[in-house]
Amino acid sequence: MEKPEHHIFLCASFRSGGDSQGVCHKKGAGNLLPYIENEILDRGLNAQITSTGCMKACDHGPVMVIHSQGVWYGNVDSEDAVDEILDALEDDAVAENFLIS
Amino acid sequence: MEKPEHHIFLCASFRSGGDSQGVCHKKGAGNLLPYIENEILDRGLNAQITSTGCMKACDHGPVMVIHSQGVWYGNVDSEDAVDEILDALEDDAVAENFLIS
Repeated sequence: MEKPEHHIFLCASFRSGGDSQGVCHKKGAGNLLPYIENEILDRGLNAQITSTGCMKACDHGPVMVIHSQGVWYGNVDSEDAVDEILDALEDDAVAENFLIS
Repeated sequence: MEKPEHHIFLCASFRSGGDSQGVCHKKGAGNLLPYIENEILDRGLNAQITSTGCMKACDHGPVMVIHSQGVWYGNVDSEDAVDEILDALEDDAVAENFLIS
């Protein structure tokens, strides 16, 4: 099976029962999923986007984690934010504005 | 914010609406979450477990991905499987029996 070079995780605040109830969801993270999928295709990135349950960084929500960079981003609440983060990823860099320190 | 050294992702087959419906969920992946959380504590691992939506490897479900190892595991359907995988993680190795090749 082909594994993605970059694995992008976006918190959608799923509870164990499946409900989306937390901070990241309330701030609209789920709405960004289709946009990110399209951007991965448009940019030709070898990347996969996966939605997640709570990543326990709710103060910084919406939260995105990118492996293998091992980078944690917060306040990823707009298409502009996604663009900035993916621009950095393409340059093998990090988007300083959204880093959770 | 403290970031975990190991980030363990377990597919719980969340759909975008939140329902858990896919292969990994049907094979009981969700039931392993509390066990994994306890094992992380018992073993003193610097690790975080996060449940996810579909990781598009349904043929191999239940699917677990561990970063920063970047390892994809399949058929993670029992506590014994979890033990074998975490034993390997502690040894900085991979659990060959469950590797998705």
